[in-house]
Amino acid sequence: MPPAHPFDDDKLREECGVFGVVGVQDAANFVALGLHALQHRGQEAGGIVSHDPEQGFNSARRFGYVRDNFTKQSLMETLPGPLAIGHVRYSTAGSKGNTAIRDVQPFFGEFSMGGAAIAHNGNITNANALRRELIERGSIFQSSSDSECIIHLMARSLQQNVPERMKDALRRVEGAFSVVAMTRTKLIGVRDPLGVRPLVIGRIGDDGFCLSSETCALDIIGAEFIREVEPGEMVVIEHGHLKSHRPFEAAKPRFCIFEQVYFSRPDSILSGRSVYETRRQIGIELAREAPVDADLVCPVPDSGTPAAIGFSHESGIPYGMGIIRNQYMGRTFIEPTEQIRNMGVRLKLNVNRALIKGKRVILVDDSVVRGTTSRKIKDMLLDAGAAEVHFRIASPPTAWPCFYGVDTPDRDKLLAARMSEEEMREYLGVDSLKFISLDGLYRAAGQEDGRNNSCPQFCDACFSGEYPVRPRDMIEKGFQLKAAE
Amino acid sequence: MPPAHPFDDDKLREECGVFGVVGVQDAANFVALGLHALQHRGQEAGGIVSHDPEQGFNSARRFGYVRDNFTKQSLMETLPGPLAIGHVRYSTAGSKGNTAIRDVQPFFGEFSMGGAAIAHNGNITNANALRRELIERGSIFQSSSDSECIIHLMARSLQQNVPERMKDALRRVEGAFSVVAMTRTKLIGVRDPLGVRPLVIGRIGDDGFCLSSETCALDIIGAEFIREVEPGEMVVIEHGHLKSHRPFEAAKPRFCIFEQVYFSRPDSILSGRSVYETRRQIGIELAREAPVDADLVCPVPDSGTPAAIGFSHESGIPYGMGIIRNQYMGRTFIEPTEQIRNMGVRLKLNVNRALIKGKRVILVDDSVVRGTTSRKIKDMLLDAGAAEVHFRIASPPTAWPCFYGVDTPDRDKLLAARMSEEEMREYLGVDSLKFISLDGLYRAAGQEDGRNNSCPQFCDACFSGEYPVRPRDMIEKGFQLKAAE
Amino acid sequence: MPPAHPFDDDKLREECGVFGVVGVQDAANFVALGLHALQHRGQEAGGIVSHDPEQGFNSARRFGYVRDNFTKQSLMETLPGPLAIGHVRYSTAGSKGNTAIRDVQPFFGEFSMGGAAIAHNGNITNANALRRELIERGSIFQSSSDSECIIHLMARSLQQNVPERMKDALRRVEGAFSVVAMTRTKLIGVRDPLGVRPLVIGRIGDDGFCLSSETCALDIIGAEFIREVEPGEMVVIEHGHLKSHRPFEAAKPRFCIFEQVYFSRPDSILSGRSVYETRRQIGIELAREAPVDADLVCPVPDSGTPAAIGFSHESGIPYGMGIIRNQYMGRTFIEPTEQIRNMGVRLKLNVNRALIKGKRVILVDDSVVRGTTSRKIKDMLLDAGAAEVHFRIASPPTAWPCFYGVDTPDRDKLLAARMSEEEMREYLGVDSLKFISLDGLYRAAGQEDGRNNSCPQFCDACFSGEYPVRPRDMIEKGFQLKAAE
Amino acid sequence: MPPAHPFDDDKLREECGVFGVVGVQDAANFVALGLHALQHRGQEAGGIVSHDPEQGFNSARRFGYVRDNFTKQSLMETLPGPLAIGHVRYSTAGSKGNTAIRDVQPFFGEFSMGGAAIAHNGNITNANALRRELIERGSIFQSSSDSECIIHLMARSLQQNVPERMKDALRRVEGAFSVVAMTRTKLIGVRDPLGVRPLVIGRIGDDGFCLSSETCALDIIGAEFIREVEPGEMVVIEHGHLKSHRPFEAAKPRFCIFEQVYFSRPDSILSGRSVYETRRQIGIELAREAPVDADLVCPVPDSGTPAAIGFSHESGIPYGMGIIRNQYMGRTFIEPTEQIRNMGVRLKLNVNRALIKGKRVILVDDSVVRGTTSRKIKDMLLDAGAAEVHFRIASPPTAWPCFYGVDTPDRDKLLAARMSEEEMREYLGVDSLKFISLDGLYRAAGQEDGRNNSCPQFCDACFSGEYPVRPRDMIEKGFQLKAAE
Repeated sequence: MPPAHPFDDDKLREECGVFGVVGVQDAANFVALGLHALQHRGQEAGGIVSHDPEQGFNSARRFGYVRDNFTKQSLMETLPGPLAIGHVRYSTAGSKGNTAIRDVQPFFGEFSMGGAAIAHNGNITNANALRRELIERGSIFQSSSDSECIIHLMARSLQQNVPERMKDALRRVEGAFSVVAMTRTKLIGVRDPLGVRPLVIGRIGDDGFCLSSETCALDIIGAEFIREVEPGEMVVIEHGHLKSHRPFEAAKPRFCIFEQVYFSRPDSILSGRSVYETRRQIGIELAREAPVDADLVCPVPDSGTPAAIGFSHESGIPYGMGIIRNQYMGRTFIEPTEQIRNMGVRLKLNVNRALIKGKRVILVDDSVVRGTTSRKIKDMLLDAGAAEVHFRIASPPTAWPCFYGVDTPDRDKLLAARMSEEEMREYLGVDSLKFISLDGLYRAAGQEDGRNNSCPQFCDACFSGEYPVRPRDMIEKGFQLKAAE
Repeated sequence: MPPAHPFDDDKLREECGVFGVVGVQDAANFVALGLHALQHRGQEAGGIVSHDPEQGFNSARRFGYVRDNFTKQSLMETLPGPLAIGHVRYSTAGSKGNTAIRDVQPFFGEFSMGGAAIAHNGNITNANALRRELIERGSIFQSSSDSECIIHLMARSLQQNVPERMKDALRRVEGAFSVVAMTRTKLIGVRDPLGVRPLVIGRIGDDGFCLSSETCALDIIGAEFIREVEPGEMVVIEHGHLKSHRPFEAAKPRFCIFEQVYFSRPDSILSGRSVYETRRQIGIELAREAPVDADLVCPVPDSGTPAAIGFSHESGIPYGMGIIRNQYMGRTFIEPTEQIRNMGVRLKLNVNRALIKGKRVILVDDSVVRGTTSRKIKDMLLDAGAAEVHFRIASPPTAWPCFYGVDTPDRDKLLAARMSEEEMREYLGVDSLKFISLDGLYRAAGQEDGRNNSCPQFCDACFSGEYPVRPRDMIEKGFQLKAAE
Repeated sequence: MPPAHPFDDDKLREECGVFGVVGVQDAANFVALGLHALQHRGQEAGGIVSHDPEQGFNSARRFGYVRDNFTKQSLMETLPGPLAIGHVRYSTAGSKGNTAIRDVQPFFGEFSMGGAAIAHNGNITNANALRRELIERGSIFQSSSDSECIIHLMARSLQQNVPERMKDALRRVEGAFSVVAMTRTKLIGVRDPLGVRPLVIGRIGDDGFCLSSETCALDIIGAEFIREVEPGEMVVIEHGHLKSHRPFEAAKPRFCIFEQVYFSRPDSILSGRSVYETRRQIGIELAREAPVDADLVCPVPDSGTPAAIGFSHESGIPYGMGIIRNQYMGRTFIEPTEQIRNMGVRLKLNVNRALIKGKRVILVDDSVVRGTTSRKIKDMLLDAGAAEVHFRIASPPTAWPCFYGVDTPDRDKLLAARMSEEEMREYLGVDSLKFISLDGLYRAAGQEDGRNNSCPQFCDACFSGEYPVRPRDMIEKGFQLKAAE
Repeated sequence: MPPAHPFDDDKLREECGVFGVVGVQDAANFVALGLHALQHRGQEAGGIVSHDPEQGFNSARRFGYVRDNFTKQSLMETLPGPLAIGHVRYSTAGSKGNTAIRDVQPFFGEFSMGGAAIAHNGNITNANALRRELIERGSIFQSSSDSECIIHLMARSLQQNVPERMKDALRRVEGAFSVVAMTRTKLIGVRDPLGVRPLVIGRIGDDGFCLSSETCALDIIGAEFIREVEPGEMVVIEHGHLKSHRPFEAAKPRFCIFEQVYFSRPDSILSGRSVYETRRQIGIELAREAPVDADLVCPVPDSGTPAAIGFSHESGIPYGMGIIRNQYMGRTFIEPTEQIRNMGVRLKLNVNRALIKGKRVILVDDSVVRGTTSRKIKDMLLDAGAAEVHFRIASPPTAWPCFYGVDTPDRDKLLAARMSEEEMREYLGVDSLKFISLDGLYRAAGQEDGRNNSCPQFCDACFSGEYPVRPRDMIEKGFQLKAAE
């Protein structure tokens, strides 16, 4: 059922991964592999649309992991052709059982001059207003996804081909978006003017091109990384040629710094730098900013591992696996028992008791959001006999929600929005707590002089509260921007 | 995937059943029962939309029988509220695996002044043109169903409420349609001006109303049959009151005579007459028109049974079950073995050898379409030792396809379009073959003076080739109307 | 889980169908068709075991209809070879969810000289004692089915080949049994000394043989009916030759008369007579024994139909379909809503109101067990305006439970065990109620002089309380035999 | 179908995990958590049996991960009671589709004095002979699992209670076994005389006890680790008391050294030592035995990680994550496309190109079996621009198959059985290749003086070819023991 309430602020918003290929046989197989490599960007569901000159457009959408669905012969045979795009999607807590498959992208629309499919990573900050306007004009929405606005805007555009209709549509859209789209012959990629979300270009085989959220998905299919789609750029690939368009007014890029901290895979290259190396540098910066005498540097696996390695390298304190991760955890439980609901982090992590016992431990994690998990990990370490626990965080305090496609709780659920650093330390019950500074983070990310406060090089709204695109829908719903200083 | 070809003449067209209730607790449960009673009108899939003041609109669509899906507590709990409509749908051979659930009705649309759901029985004969026009204007179709046109026309109407928008939309639609629709508070029923497909009104409880394709579905929920929705009438039921509207220009009714012959259930009342009695009368007329000396009147179960009883009553020849039906047959096989594909009618019917042996048999069936099954049944009778086989058909030769919502093969696949009666007799290999006359059929259906050829009382296009509504889309695709005489 | 209580009198007992083929390619496909034709004998689950010289024994067991499982290419490919047996099984109310697939036959055992699979129709009346003895000796039961005793007895036999082991085992077994079994090369069929349950032999192709519960299953695969396996006979078929053995002491046959009344399909031949004709004769006898002035003879579909036809033929009162059966009913509902649980017979049957109104109706049914359904049908007829309802039953009062493989309620649930005929008439609320006499039934079944009371020709324990095999387990559990007169 | 060939050397053998709890509410929930923590020991299927005083024994067996099945309310409600045992099982390649659920443990048997369930980790080396003997005596096997022998031996024992029957049975069994069993009131654990496979005892709550393959599963349920079940010991726990029995002749323990190298989880304690620490020590030993000048120590994740950390600690060469593991890989693909079949390790691992480029890399892995994966990883490193690749292996060359419950290929598939170390280096195409020495491994595992060659402290047959228990079945099938020197 299309939602009675088209925008629901109880709902977690998705962070997604997109992938597209053109110019190879059975393109959908490549898309499936690419999405498998991007699974960390969205684990709830995935979809692929392909086009074959004889069999036209075909699509499949499935809940669950890519590897459990889009590896099957019988399904992949229904997705023939040399051109395909795909999407993986994060859990949206609010979507109820029998309707949510409609919200799985890519979306498809048949226009008067042909059809197009699009997949979107990001978030549209004026989706409410756009949806109201489109319904007023007679569009019928089939999903609760804001991304569907783009395809309705395209359907109503007066332009005569898909790329021009897409420009027309995206000029009405505010927010962060990296879009991969396709027509019968074209593969299209677009990033919003600020380039908040990533999107890269690869080459495969003689004539093939691909577009991907991250470079790690180029590796899995043996594609060569060419360059990023630039902020504000639209690339249109057809018959082995790539044309670059610039549909938007020029703007200073503001790439999401949280992709560097946590979201992207460590083996990806972002803005010309290895994510692993950036994270290791964060650990080095942290060790310089917040040294402490201890016996062991221990990561919270796996997101804290590269920073912990860096901290160990810089401090000389031995690195060790004090917390072991159970590899058989997925994201969700269907109809769980009471006991499972109450288990929390213990289902996933266990302390390596023999290693921890009697040690002064530096625990390195990527971030603190609500703080609930961090407390439980600290309890587990103390239970196991840790002498001291010093918590080092590879990002500044997360004090503001993201409205650009990362799932964050409401502001009042964010620990750092409610407490000072000392209050947090007390709440978490650790011997010391230090976050990397914003400047330290910028340095680790390659900005040698740190953050340019008059014109920051990244989007760091979750840390600074400075939103580079006005979160219009959220303000309409009562969100208070940071007071100007 | 919305279809590359919105109208595909290789595709079997649906015959459907619709049902709606308002003014009862848990209306969806009543709709489920009603659809179960209408299952013979569509066996592939079913859908229900309900509305609850607190939980808004909810829907569920499922492949398979109503009884296997819409009887489950866990599913029905997702469909709360005092107002619900539903739909069962016949197999459409052309819809491929992973997309067809989108084609299952009811369709839902959110308009600027609220939402509406509609379910449709019939066929729109200008759907092609309407779909082209709507896509041109920027509507995005989500299904391959022609019925979706109605909801898009409604979304674009300039009228200010759902009933007025529906009138606006249906005035653009040509063909045969019985529509059941709902808003948050209203249950709406409409029949096309000729009233080709059935739709009846029932009362339930103190304040409740229901709408149903046939009266047999009123019986199952204990509702009282009030009257038919009249051809060209729209009824709007709200807060326990029914208002009648007349949105179309007046026309002479042309109810589908094939509903009398085959489609409706024998325990339903159509146009004031018992379907069972009409079919028994057909047998009586047949016995008068085409008597033959024989030992046994034997129906092809179950559709030939009432006419065979009538034939026996009139002729005095004993009635007997010479063919036994296996009750455990459904419609389709998933991934069948070669052997199953080749079994055909033997999976479903077996000859009662001891009864048939040495007998002169009058075999009564409702109709002959391709003739392939009839031949096999005759073979089975001869194998079992029948002395003679006389075939009596309870309808005139089916020589023309139906474009008003009954699934029929292309004209060149219809045996009666290619052969004379004697050629058919030879092809079927029977000792005699007789069809009821068109006048005899009209008499059996209550028209004492037979067919009024200048202004026939029924739609009998499948027999006569006289189409009361121009099949515009089909003509565009090359269909040849009968030459004027 | 093997049951804590190996014999549970709250549990409904199964009535089953068995089928076996040897000497054809892909024998399992033929078994699947045979089981489909025998589906009325057991609707809950089915199983097939096949043997192929290269791939050895293979098996598959599935819940649900044969047509939904054993028609699939992918499943049937796992059952190769020229020799196969199969089984369909009735619902056993007591088996709980996740364990019951173990109870689905055929059972398989590997013995020291080779393996064997067996499928069993009937009931073992000393199963309790046998099971206790076998467990004492160290056998491990894997199912709650009494039939498993046979395979354990075979495993422990001192004989040197499967047929001799089977004789050894079956000589320990009391009760009613028709067994189909197979080794690597042999197809084996056995009936108990009284021949209570049916089993017939057919020929197929040049060298092929089949064994089946009923002849209707020979028809579907095009096999020729040869003869019945005789009471007390064991047939062993190998390399195209059939050998007959007589392992038991001779006894007077006592075939189940209820197979004639209700259980077998009307197109089967039992003891040389057409089941349909026997049932029609029952109607004729009933019309003679219990005539009544009325307007319409109406069957309770479908089991009452042949007797109603006979009643109409004899009485001259017109036959008509006053009750219409919904063809889309299966046996069970999974997790049904409260409303579905309360619907009862209305989900399955509807009155043909126009036909019934104002008529004096003779309602013909095969039997009355608890009487609850009969009352509801009568209510439906009166609701529809029937002037009188006269109930005629095609069997004598069912006053005793069956312990030979037909599912019957406990004796105190049987209406005829608690009430006189007049009390039943009052309870059912009909104008008259008549059962056929036991002699009349015997005459209809071909015994011209009626029942030989000193040595009855059939087992009629359910009517007479005279049990031809002592129900040992049930007596142990407290069942009271009829007092000697 | 019980297998035609009860022992199939083409079949991969299982390595399993077992867990049992008594004296807690809803014991099955605890077993589910324990099995989740032991999932690395068997990923194909799992089973739980519970006992409740009122509801008796219940069981459930499922394919797939514990977390996908045994966390569901609806399933766990079917497993009530204060006593439960469970089992996880590794993939057995030879079991075909529809039969294998029978092979999932625990097995259950009803004996003359009550029932018992058992779960088994290990492998019975005289299973062939036992199975032949049992079939000869009339036992019917229901699975292809050798473990079923134990329950049949118990069923035939002349002893009067379950513990005594189990002693009786296990005295006939040769090989490696850690067994967890239960009766209605007792939880029982046994290890074979050599203690090849692990089994530990924990306490939970006031009166509760648990038995587990590894200590990590005690942690997840908050149980306290008490001690190991000793080699050759049987513990019987009832009403909160533990009794120790010694049913076997005393023998020198020979715990599996491969549990230390690879199989157990790093956060478990084996023989009083942390597995993580043992593996880190292996890295330290390796760095001493086989130093090399290089830029980076890189583990093959995750099994090589602790040894790589140790190598880095000892050598001072920086540790780095040069290979990144995709966390969304499970074990198997259903019906995979050709492309997926050919992907191999690239689906799971990707090189961190920016880190590897131009570096001399020390690659640390736990073992080399067939060598095929190792070659592909080396190729990926060279593709990414590694200057040199030095391969260091945390175990000696695996030259002999394991017959004690670890899945290993046939001997001729083992790289080390066919090649010298230099040949392996060439085959793998690396700049250097070094395995830890057997003495070095023993030292790392806590035996300061290395291996006692006259009486080794561990079972190291996979490295040494010295089998502490004669692999009788395999010798019967043609396996050649190492020639005496």
